[in-house]
Amino acid sequence: MKPVVVRNITRADADAVGVLGGLGVSTVHESMGRVGLMKPYMRPIYSGAEIAGPAVTVLAQPGDNWMIHVAVEQCQKGDVLVVGCTTDNTDGMFGDLLATSLKARGVLGLIIEAGCRDVKTLKEMGFPVWSRAISAKGTVKATLGSVNIPVVCAGVLVNPGDVVVADDDGVCVVPAKEAADVAQKGSKRNAEEGDKRAKLASGVLGLDMYHMREPLARAGLTYIDNPEDA
Amino acid sequence: MKPVVVRNITRADADAVGVLGGLGVSTVHESMGRVGLMKPYMRPIYSGAEIAGPAVTVLAQPGDNWMIHVAVEQCQKGDVLVVGCTTDNTDGMFGDLLATSLKARGVLGLIIEAGCRDVKTLKEMGFPVWSRAISAKGTVKATLGSVNIPVVCAGVLVNPGDVVVADDDGVCVVPAKEAADVAQKGSKRNAEEGDKRAKLASGVLGLDMYHMREPLARAGLTYIDNPEDA
Amino acid sequence: MKPVVVRNITRADADAVGVLGGLGVSTVHESMGRVGLMKPYMRPIYSGAEIAGPAVTVLAQPGDNWMIHVAVEQCQKGDVLVVGCTTDNTDGMFGDLLATSLKARGVLGLIIEAGCRDVKTLKEMGFPVWSRAISAKGTVKATLGSVNIPVVCAGVLVNPGDVVVADDDGVCVVPAKEAADVAQKGSKRNAEEGDKRAKLASGVLGLDMYHMREPLARAGLTYIDNPEDA
Amino acid sequence: MKPVVVRNITRADADAVGVLGGLGVSTVHESMGRVGLMKPYMRPIYSGAEIAGPAVTVLAQPGDNWMIHVAVEQCQKGDVLVVGCTTDNTDGMFGDLLATSLKARGVLGLIIEAGCRDVKTLKEMGFPVWSRAISAKGTVKATLGSVNIPVVCAGVLVNPGDVVVADDDGVCVVPAKEAADVAQKGSKRNAEEGDKRAKLASGVLGLDMYHMREPLARAGLTYIDNPEDA
Amino acid sequence: MKPVVVRNITRADADAVGVLGGLGVSTVHESMGRVGLMKPYMRPIYSGAEIAGPAVTVLAQPGDNWMIHVAVEQCQKGDVLVVGCTTDNTDGMFGDLLATSLKARGVLGLIIEAGCRDVKTLKEMGFPVWSRAISAKGTVKATLGSVNIPVVCAGVLVNPGDVVVADDDGVCVVPAKEAADVAQKGSKRNAEEGDKRAKLASGVLGLDMYHMREPLARAGLTYIDNPEDA
Amino acid sequence: MKPVVVRNITRADADAVGVLGGLGVSTVHESMGRVGLMKPYMRPIYSGAEIAGPAVTVLAQPGDNWMIHVAVEQCQKGDVLVVGCTTDNTDGMFGDLLATSLKARGVLGLIIEAGCRDVKTLKEMGFPVWSRAISAKGTVKATLGSVNIPVVCAGVLVNPGDVVVADDDGVCVVPAKEAADVAQKGSKRNAEEGDKRAKLASGVLGLDMYHMREPLARAGLTYIDNPEDA
Repeated sequence: MKPVVVRNITRADADAVGVLGGLGVSTVHESMGRVGLMKPYMRPIYSGAEIAGPAVTVLAQPGDNWMIHVAVEQCQKGDVLVVGCTTDNTDGMFGDLLATSLKARGVLGLIIEAGCRDVKTLKEMGFPVWSRAISAKGTVKATLGSVNIPVVCAGVLVNPGDVVVADDDGVCVVPAKEAADVAQKGSKRNAEEGDKRAKLASGVLGLDMYHMREPLARAGLTYIDNPEDA
Repeated sequence: MKPVVVRNITRADADAVGVLGGLGVSTVHESMGRVGLMKPYMRPIYSGAEIAGPAVTVLAQPGDNWMIHVAVEQCQKGDVLVVGCTTDNTDGMFGDLLATSLKARGVLGLIIEAGCRDVKTLKEMGFPVWSRAISAKGTVKATLGSVNIPVVCAGVLVNPGDVVVADDDGVCVVPAKEAADVAQKGSKRNAEEGDKRAKLASGVLGLDMYHMREPLARAGLTYIDNPEDA
Repeated sequence: MKPVVVRNITRADADAVGVLGGLGVSTVHESMGRVGLMKPYMRPIYSGAEIAGPAVTVLAQPGDNWMIHVAVEQCQKGDVLVVGCTTDNTDGMFGDLLATSLKARGVLGLIIEAGCRDVKTLKEMGFPVWSRAISAKGTVKATLGSVNIPVVCAGVLVNPGDVVVADDDGVCVVPAKEAADVAQKGSKRNAEEGDKRAKLASGVLGLDMYHMREPLARAGLTYIDNPEDA
Repeated sequence: MKPVVVRNITRADADAVGVLGGLGVSTVHESMGRVGLMKPYMRPIYSGAEIAGPAVTVLAQPGDNWMIHVAVEQCQKGDVLVVGCTTDNTDGMFGDLLATSLKARGVLGLIIEAGCRDVKTLKEMGFPVWSRAISAKGTVKATLGSVNIPVVCAGVLVNPGDVVVADDDGVCVVPAKEAADVAQKGSKRNAEEGDKRAKLASGVLGLDMYHMREPLARAGLTYIDNPEDA
Repeated sequence: MKPVVVRNITRADADAVGVLGGLGVSTVHESMGRVGLMKPYMRPIYSGAEIAGPAVTVLAQPGDNWMIHVAVEQCQKGDVLVVGCTTDNTDGMFGDLLATSLKARGVLGLIIEAGCRDVKTLKEMGFPVWSRAISAKGTVKATLGSVNIPVVCAGVLVNPGDVVVADDDGVCVVPAKEAADVAQKGSKRNAEEGDKRAKLASGVLGLDMYHMREPLARAGLTYIDNPEDA
Repeated sequence: MKPVVVRNITRADADAVGVLGGLGVSTVHESMGRVGLMKPYMRPIYSGAEIAGPAVTVLAQPGDNWMIHVAVEQCQKGDVLVVGCTTDNTDGMFGDLLATSLKARGVLGLIIEAGCRDVKTLKEMGFPVWSRAISAKGTVKATLGSVNIPVVCAGVLVNPGDVVVADDDGVCVVPAKEAADVAQKGSKRNAEEGDKRAKLASGVLGLDMYHMREPLARAGLTYIDNPEDA
């Protein structure tokens, strides 16, 4: 790996980003065909935040946040910063000073497969972070990584400019070229869900609404009465 | 395992269920002789919920929530749905549509040794879930499991109709036939705790209140003064 | 290990304790040279609490909280109780009755490398706990440990009287004899951070403020334009 | 839980035990309908051992091996000792002295959801153990548990007398009353596997042997040529 | 994700594959600039195996090995099969029958981010597997995935045709287009290591051989004598 | 933490070291009163090695093995190198070149709370390592730590010169000043075990040999006959 910073990345279409953010992680993930979801150890440092934006990516070294400082300059309004690490690490690579700097540039939030600190201040600032740990462990600025190369973060490949959607359910990544298609599928899915929800709320069973009884029987499911009653 | 749905299960005595719910998990677990507690990785998706009800049980396959759809029909008002899985899995087997359906039937909440999603909506609906993970990962409806057979969930055997008690401290299961006895013991224990709490709050030491000094000395505990003072 | 209770420990300087508490965990940890931090699996049972005080230490056996009862008597106003365990354990060694007793003595909070229960009540009482798990699992009072000996808790050596600082970022331990020095360094660090924060908020880049561009270039970092644009 | 030792348990049919031992864990598990398998963190302390026998069960407390000593007396030739624990624990509850005692009674091996020690000696003795950890951590003999009650061990319910099959692939439990049926199904499965293995070794594809091409196409699988070749 | 099988992939240069296999994982990983290494939970089921070959990739569903059956047909002599999974899973997706089929086609081994079974037989057959678990847990053939698409396996992106190198130190992936360059760098590195090893064996210190004393002093390292001797 | 190398440490008494090595980890740990044992995730890279020697200690940074290079010079014949890390890390900080250098100085083995690589070569060289992971992940030489200061390694405080005992059961640390006393207690314990082993092998029950029946009855243990026989 030659350490490099790629400037002027191509970002996903802004309209698609807007739609995807409105759909939320679970719907987006389903609309992609059930891929693109980061591992569930990625959790928000506070609940309720919902963001979507194109990714600026960082590959960092364990215990070293130098490249996050480098990445700030490459961010613009509406971006989401995504940090992968060359190895498993939980150190607090990110805190309120970096958040202040990112917020000044209009960055919406951070996804980091490492640790985060100053979480009380970050919550007060309204700068959301999804991380694998909360840790005050300080880091050095000694070894290079890269900015805006493809990185694997929490099990998902993220290319610079891909759409990152994050909320209380986790983090999902939509490749930039699929963004419009996924946005369309997700909107359709959402429209259908409202109707389903109303039926289920009225007492209609999913077994009937989804026409499951026949395939269940064909697969071999049998119903018996409680043997203890005999 | 032949896939089966057992109908018309026998539920634990409703009066005992009511008492156990008032006692809470820690007291119920103690009153059973310190057994019956699910592993501590089972956490509520939001804090403050407290439920107790007879179990409707599901044995599900990894990444497949078909049997949860099947189980809904077997639930009635006041039940708690308990989902075990044939292998370790964190996928989001449960979301707001299934919750809408369960709520329409009067189910109090869900215990699932897998993942849960739509957590923001579930919190707004007031439908509590205790799970081993929060994950948007979607699931299929392809392979049969069973409903209302004995299942092991998070290390505890749950028989259909057993009492499930869940709150911020975790999840505890009381066999149906022990429910009345445990309820009685727990009520007695609770009554005694109020008195103890008052004494401790006034400054009485547990060492004295529990008469521990003599057994401690007998076991060999010695007191010394800070050697650095010498 | 001979089971022993050490009385009359020497506590860290109260003024230094006060300063360290105001600085918070991340700043204190940095000011120590990035050591002294407990592993990040130690989490607060509710967010927002911030404490600092001299440590009263306990070495407990798995599934046994006898020595915590013994330790209460050794605590005084402003102390923080720190419980290590001879082996990995998540049982609920601590609950509201022990908290009532500690609160009656003026203890500020508990750090325990094991489990904690009655978390709803503890939150209502305002008695904060940092633990590795929340678990209702009950414990026995059968085997001796020690009080006020040096213990390793979550990867950090804690001597009785050392300063324990805990907040939403984790738990940090300052050796008593370093407390004044660390307090001074931390205060200086804090003063400088305010100025940095203002600059970053105004849009100054860390790259410039910290003079990173030259060392980055020397280390070999190169900038390229998005190859997809070619 | 009232501490109790149940004597004179009913053991699974010896002929079925013999057949099941010859089949091995993977075949037995499949023949049960893919249930009954302990979690994969249960690993043998040395490779190559293969055992099968009726279970004598123990419910132990964390860090306490008293009930294992009690259980020895209840074991007879050909048995397998199975130890569950009331909570997660990795302490070395079992070593060469207990193994010597069990071997003197003809016990075939140990399954323990906790730790094991003296592993070099146990290997030399030829006494196999499947455990969740290897640990020298010593234990006390202070708190009662039970012997020959139903226990959950590594996620599986084990009733006294059930058949335990263990080899390099893990540990599987067959309820005593299903033993003969599972043995028969497994034997049939094994007979068929030899033929399949020969075909596959000769180059026949599973796709053809199992007639998968049609269902794959029906499910929607498509074949394309490498797009990079275009 | 549309389920697809890509035929006729382009494989990395055979000469480079041969060189990389001779270098081993640690040297290859260093020669790539310390990237490309799968997470260390990927372990060989027996020690001593060393393989290198172009990747045929599979994206499988949890608890479902259907696509592995599909992938066999796409493999040719010298390939390494790489299986990623849409979610964390430890089920035994692979056993001796699939290994027989792969061996008949000349496949060198398997890398699977899930479980493996029949490990005793696989060792006897000389078919090595690197997996995240050993588990007898059986799987279904019910849900489609894909073959020969880019997959993330144990934290690393694997494109079909990339070089997979695996030995007792783990698993490393070299992008096909970098294979020749990495092979050359690795060979040079290896040549230099022999000389270094001889010097170190003769007692020359790395401190001197690598000229570390000056940079250590510049970084601020100080040497003191044992204060206890004073 | 000021980075420092302490020279001329005081090593534990050589005679005691020799005795402790002969006793092995489990006996030494018991003789210390069941403390001093590292966490069980510390495993040998190959089985059968047994070492004991005074500790030379290193505090390293994550992903950085610079201080191990520094530490080599401080080692002498018979020492054991012990490496702690400022945060959880599994990188391969140690390989065959460092082992060659240590072996040239007569060092017996390595204990490292991080990763190790070149394990095949290390086994061939006969240089044993106990580590928390095997990983080829390469490291940098960029940030200082310290040599021969007290470090916490895998949950245990290790002072320079303390006795480290390691074998297949794990790793135990005996403070230098307790070495002679523990050696004596362990030798006595070992002598008694031979007699016990002979009795148990002849069929005497531990229940009788350890006089457990009376205390068990007193604690409330009851014996019942199999209720299914009724």
